[in-house]
Parts: sequence; C-alpha cells; structure tokens
Amino acid sequence: MNDRFLRACRREPVDATPVWFMRQAGRSLPEYRAIRRHATLADIVRDPALCAEVTIQPVRRLGVDAAILFADITTPLPGIGVDVEIVDGTGPVIARPIRTAADVAALRGFDPEASVPGLLEAIRLLRRDLDVPLIGFAGAPFTLASYLVEGRGSRDAAALKGLLHAEPEVAGALLDVLVDLSLAYLRAQVAAGVQAVQLFDSWIGVLGPWDYARHVAPRMRRLFDGLAGLGVPAIHFGTGGAGLLPAIAAAGGDVIGLDWRVDLHDAWDVVGDRAVQGNLDPSVLLGPWPEVEAQARWVLERAGGRPGHVFNLGHGVLPATDPDQLRRLVDLVHAGVTVEALA
Amino acid sequence: MNDRFLRACRREPVDATPVWFMRQAGRSLPEYRAIRRHATLADIVRDPALCAEVTIQPVRRLGVDAAILFADITTPLPGIGVDVEIVDGTGPVIARPIRTAADVAALRGFDPEASVPGLLEAIRLLRRDLDVPLIGFAGAPFTLASYLVEGRGSRDAAALKGLLHAEPEVAGALLDVLVDLSLAYLRAQVAAGVQAVQLFDSWIGVLGPWDYARHVAPRMRRLFDGLAGLGVPAIHFGTGGAGLLPAIAAAGGDVIGLDWRVDLHDAWDVVGDRAVQGNLDPSVLLGPWPEVEAQARWVLERAGGRPGHVFNLGHGVLPATDPDQLRRLVDLVHAGVTVEALA
Repeated sequence: MNDRFLRACRREPVDATPVWFMRQAGRSLPEYRAIRRHATLADIVRDPALCAEVTIQPVRRLGVDAAILFADITTPLPGIGVDVEIVDGTGPVIARPIRTAADVAALRGFDPEASVPGLLEAIRLLRRDLDVPLIGFAGAPFTLASYLVEGRGSRDAAALKGLLHAEPEVAGALLDVLVDLSLAYLRAQVAAGVQAVQLFDSWIGVLGPWDYARHVAPRMRRLFDGLAGLGVPAIHFGTGGAGLLPAIAAAGGDVIGLDWRVDLHDAWDVVGDRAVQGNLDPSVLLGPWPEVEAQARWVLERAGGRPGHVFNLGHGVLPATDPDQLRRLVDLVHAGVTVEALA
Repeated sequence: MNDRFLRACRREPVDATPVWFMRQAGRSLPEYRAIRRHATLADIVRDPALCAEVTIQPVRRLGVDAAILFADITTPLPGIGVDVEIVDGTGPVIARPIRTAADVAALRGFDPEASVPGLLEAIRLLRRDLDVPLIGFAGAPFTLASYLVEGRGSRDAAALKGLLHAEPEVAGALLDVLVDLSLAYLRAQVAAGVQAVQLFDSWIGVLGPWDYARHVAPRMRRLFDGLAGLGVPAIHFGTGGAGLLPAIAAAGGDVIGLDWRVDLHDAWDVVGDRAVQGNLDPSVLLGPWPEVEAQARWVLERAGGRPGHVFNLGHGVLPATDPDQLRRLVDLVHAGVTVEALA
C-alpha cells in the first residue's frame, strides 16, 4: 500500500512528494470517454462496478498516489428532495431552485444508504482493488447552496448573495441543511471505506471576507468539527479564495487546498501548521512540456521539501489535457524533490 | 474645487474620506438610460458634449468626489487597427482575433488626436464644467490582450494563456504594443486635462504569480514608469488579484485598487506605503440599506482613518443598483469617518 498521500496529509516524512489531480477521472482520459459513449454520469454513479472502474482509471494510467471517488458534487442532492439534471456543456441544472423559507422547509433529511447505495458499494469495491488511498468528497455548503439557489453554476452567485443579504435567516437555514447533508454523506463514505475526505468550495471565491465570516465560517467550523472524530484527514479547498485564505484555514481542515492564483510558499505561511495541497495552473498542461516542467518545479521549490505538501493542480484537469502530460508530470513530481525521512 | 480625492491619492489629510464608484456613469442611472435610447455607446464616446454629459451625470446625482471619463476599455483599439463592436449583453466583440505574429505585426501605432478626438475634446469640456477631479483610464495590457486574443470577454482567458505558454514571443510582442498604446492614450488624456489615471486589469485574476511575474509585471513596470513623469496619480486596479497583490503593488501605481474579496486592512499591509481604493462588494447595494450601511462602515473601520483611502466599490456598479442607495452611501462615507488634519 502506497501511503505517501496519507503521510503527507499528516505532515509526516515521505519518500517522494505525493501527487493526485482534481478531476483526474474524467474527460481527459480516452478510456473514460469510451465508457461515456454508453453511460451518462448518473448511470456511472449508480453502478458500483462502473463507478469503481472510472475511479481507478487514472491510478492505472497516471500512477497517481491517491484515487478520488468518481461523482458529481450535486450527486447527493436528490437525497434531500432536489431534482438535478447534469446537462452536457452546462453542468448541473436544478429545475426548481430553492429560494424561500418554504422551499428550505420542504427539503428532506439525507439517508446515504437509501440515496447513494451505488456509490457506497463502489467504495467497498475500490478498497478491495486499490493500492493507493481512496479520497471521498462533498461539495461545501455555500457551493451546493449556490447551485440550489441559482439553479445552475453561476460566476457571481448573485441570487444566493442577494438571499444572504435580504433574507439571512432563509439562506442560513439552507446552509444548515447542507452542513447536515455533507456530514451524513461524508460519514457514510468513511464508514464504507474512504481514507480521506475533501470539501470542495468551488464558488466561495465570489464572497468577500465580511460575508464569509458571518454566513459561512461558523457553518464550516461545525462541519469540520463533525468530521474530526472520523479519523481521516479532511482537505478544505476553496477556489478563488486567495483573499479568504486566513478565514478558510481558520474554519477547518487538516489539509488546505490552494488554487493556482497564489504563491504556494506565501499561502502556506498564511495557512500555518497544516498540510497544503496544490497548486499548478491546470491550463499550463495544455501547452508545451518545458513550460509544464518549469512551473511544476517552481511549485515544488515553493513547497521547499517541507513535510505536508500534496502536489496537485490548482483546479481540475481541463478536458483537453493530454494524459501523457499528466503521466510525465507525476514522474517529475516523484523524482523532483525527495524529502529524506526525518525519523 | 473639491480636491479630497487627489489629496487622498497623495496620502494627504482630508476633511472626509473621498468616494467615487467604478461604473458610476452608466446603466444604473435613469438619465443615462434615457440617452442610450437614442445613442449607442460608440455614439456617446464620439460626441464630446454627450460624453461630457454622461460623465458628469453621477457627479450631479450622487455627489461623488471624482468623475471618471465615460468610455469603454476597448475604445482605443480601432486606433491600432482592430475592429471592435460593443454588443448589448455580451460586451466588446472583436471580429478578427489577434493570434499570430503576423496579426501582431499588422497592428498600427496609436495616434490619440486622430483616433479619439471626441474623447479628448470631452475632457476639455469637462475640465471647464466639473468641480471635482476628472479621472482618465485605460485597460491594462493583459486585459486588452485578453479581448484581442479571445475575441471577447472570457472568464478563463484560455486562448491568451495558451499563447503565453506556447508562443511567449508573440504574446509578449502583443503586450508590448498594448503598453505603447496605453502610454500614448493616457498621455493624451493627461495633456487634455485628466487629473488622475486608472489602469483596469479586469482579467488579471486568471493568472498565477509565475505567469504574472514573467509576462505581465515587467510590462506594467514600463507602463507605470512612463506615467511617472506626467504629474498625476496613477491607480492600479487588478480584479480578482488577491493572490497577486504583492506583485501588482510592486509593478507600480500610486494608488492600489482592491476588489471586494480582500480584507482592506490586511491588503493595505501587503500594499505598503501607497494609497488604496476600495472595496465594498457591489452586490451588497442590491440588498437592504442596513446591510449596505454595516458593510460600508466595516470598510471604513478597516481603513482606520489612515490618510490615503479612496472609498469605492470592489468592482463596478451593477446595472440593477438603485441610485438612491449610492447617494445614501456617499453621504455615509462623507459622514462616517473624519480624519483630523494632521498638519
């Protein structure tokens, strides 16, 4: 069992910097596209064998040090009574957005075994087959709320922000429901076998520090407090949150994810005594290898060989990425910086 | 003459915190919408009297401490040989994007008197009529290049980033042309009478620190060095650049603009011995007044009455904003914090 990833999450010495990629499973891999010719994303998530296969594909091809369960961040939402459709080219679309106190009150409690049995079974299959750790994940409450209130991905989350300012008690009740959802969902994933969890706050970058402190931080603290007893590392990743980084780190997480728009060294200073994950710009991988190499080496240099760096991109793998570039990048990271065992 | 704004840019004591709003002239004002029923944006920019009228409207209605010349950041581009059309709902659209060395070589030098005579005449008219300082502006080279290479506004500037990585000499030559354009354009605005200039790097938030340092910072330094001799304060505003803030500040500017996603106090510490401008979230103005008041007071508190704060939003006024909220906000800022004269 390759445990570099888990050791780095705990800031223990490692034989090489561990590396995995957000969205490593998915459209950049031809073997995934082959499956998608016969199956929708929803089909894959419902079918344990297919979900396990898609999750394991990048481990086989790329040699990464961790697998991440294949699902969409909106996958659990039907379990609280929300109809979601994944539309190609648009992403998740919610037919009836949640905007009133009555809408929030109508949401159901989340029962993982009833709502996502296929995913939980996929986790059990994967633990049998994988020789690297398996990461579970959930969308963070603000990001899920953004989909629920806007009805789809939105670059400014204007409707959710409007609700936060005009009806903070309604927005707050929705966020509370989503904290409960994420807790139940992640507890079930851990019970089924995932060895780490990541919270994706993909839309948090639209908020300023005032709104984050008032509406989001207390709820993220409750969420991370609830995860603390599970015995697995929790990764907290907020996209576009450079200005929020002190608040994001204070809200919780054993590992803080960094997007590509921060200097890893400076950001690690802000984060303090925690592991960090990141932060190569995924768009660099669309260009020539020497540029990938130069920027990846720079990320490793900025990490400086300190225990507690998980190499990753600063955002998900772009669909047009050549998997051979990713494979070469994995080899570079493994060869690039070797931290001598300190023990 | 109300010179609070210019005094704050120079970090001199002021009788009240000066305030103006990015996009204060425009769709949030009914008197602007009335003009737009008969005139396109291009018509307004060509007609000195109309341009001056639109520029002065927010000064009359809102009582702000500065006017900003009404134009689009793509307004000078036809002057280097690029056809731009402003499409309602989309923004500027460039029929033939610039993507090759030949495309860049075909761009012409910029002659302000030949290309934007109406704007320069509007500046002269405004200086006669205004009792607050007039700010000129230009798009920063990376942001203009983003429009030129993408063909329109793009949330990830993927084509420009691809060009930077695959053909840095072509992208660099384009950025150099745009530095020359911005310098000539802003020098002409100052010669015609503007009393401060602002560089808008609206799309810079897509870049990480590595790319900024290599491709953008040296060019911004050349630009600010070229402006230094003009005797007017230069404001440097990069949207979404929280993680780039040290690099943006180091690249130049007498005043550093802050968007709403940073804590003003912490960001000012990063910026150091410079004035700062910002940083209320513009979306707050769509909500109830008590929330506007609370967040505006927080911005003023974070500025702490230090000389050198120009109150502004962290981004442009949203079109749906009620001008009465803006007027009330101006009054709040003027009343809220009074810095005693230090002399």
